[in-house]
Amino acid sequence: MRPTITAFRDSPDRGQGLARDMPVRWALEEVGQPYDVRLVTFTEMKAAAHRGLQPFGQIPSYENGDLALFESGAIVLQIAERHGGLLPEDTAARARAIMWMFAALSTIEPPIVERDAAILVEGNAPWFAARQPLLEERVRHRLTDLSRALGDAEWLGPSFSAGDLVMIGVLRRSSGSGLLEEHPNLVAYVARGEARPAFRRAFDDQYAVFLAAARREEEGIN
Amino acid sequence: MRPTITAFRDSPDRGQGLARDMPVRWALEEVGQPYDVRLVTFTEMKAAAHRGLQPFGQIPSYENGDLALFESGAIVLQIAERHGGLLPEDTAARARAIMWMFAALSTIEPPIVERDAAILVEGNAPWFAARQPLLEERVRHRLTDLSRALGDAEWLGPSFSAGDLVMIGVLRRSSGSGLLEEHPNLVAYVARGEARPAFRRAFDDQYAVFLAAARREEEGIN
Repeated sequence: MRPTITAFRDSPDRGQGLARDMPVRWALEEVGQPYDVRLVTFTEMKAAAHRGLQPFGQIPSYENGDLALFESGAIVLQIAERHGGLLPEDTAARARAIMWMFAALSTIEPPIVERDAAILVEGNAPWFAARQPLLEERVRHRLTDLSRALGDAEWLGPSFSAGDLVMIGVLRRSSGSGLLEEHPNLVAYVARGEARPAFRRAFDDQYAVFLAAARREEEGIN
Repeated sequence: MRPTITAFRDSPDRGQGLARDMPVRWALEEVGQPYDVRLVTFTEMKAAAHRGLQPFGQIPSYENGDLALFESGAIVLQIAERHGGLLPEDTAARARAIMWMFAALSTIEPPIVERDAAILVEGNAPWFAARQPLLEERVRHRLTDLSRALGDAEWLGPSFSAGDLVMIGVLRRSSGSGLLEEHPNLVAYVARGEARPAFRRAFDDQYAVFLAAARREEEGIN
């Protein structure tokens, strides 16, 4: 069975691979599972047909036979459970890999997204500059703790897992902010993830979608 | 094997059961697994010994034999996988129950926490009132979509699952804000969760911890 995922037809990140189809693509590449992509416009994302798959009108969704899922974390976990290579065999190590997936999405990502959203939505507000230190401090707190937890290790567990995949995807959002760069071990950790052939293939595939969108834009097609 | 979890010695929510030990307690009660609780002060939470278990200096942690976990979502999933009753047997329904856990923690909770944090930390800031509509709109968006997804159903899946347990725990944070109350089906959904005997037992246990803390405060002991 060949799964189908959805992704932005016109990704707002302009090919940086920061949209949430990226961890799903990466996981599918890691396990060697070919997949189809259905690109959706912003209008299609908010329409009833897509909301039947993804009630929050977002991407990605994942369809595989009778199974329809949303939430990139849940999709990555599903892929990791169906295929070998993304979760350790040892029960305790497996539970800890899943734990890092939750930590990425529920402890590390929210302050990063909050800061990004402030820049995007409140960048011109009179209070923007005054709030920045507060938002940066929230991200800094989490990254400092994560940096200490990773230490000199290559990955968060004994070997690369779905926990690293999701965590690196989240940390990439902070790349270039100066905050990630305060922790050389986290920068190196992200680079190790990005150097994996499966990451490259996933990145190139989502970048090709961006290039097609950019070409349409240039040619005035929409 | 009897697991040990950590919880606040002095919970900042003053017994409302909003701290993250609550979903773990609730899950353990649902599956009938007795457990021990080690209460930690704020100072202990930030100390190296606890950070060995929970690198972000938070509660809860979970120890069971050789396994040590943090992240309430990961702990609830671990409990649900080890015991019957919190995940459907059917593979697709099981994956969707886990999906709702991720949706609760990564789609619904962040805007609720962001709004709560603004009230707590920026309540006296000159921009507080001007930002409130933005923060409320973010919560409202998510709750509206969730309300539509739930519809007239009793639970998010075919029967009560770990997905409902985590989602209801998250929604309780929004209880009384007026935002949850815009959706009578979500209010009723939360009430159905709170009416479960396992929820009551978990709530009463964490409330007893609060009462002991309140007594110490009254007697001037710390």
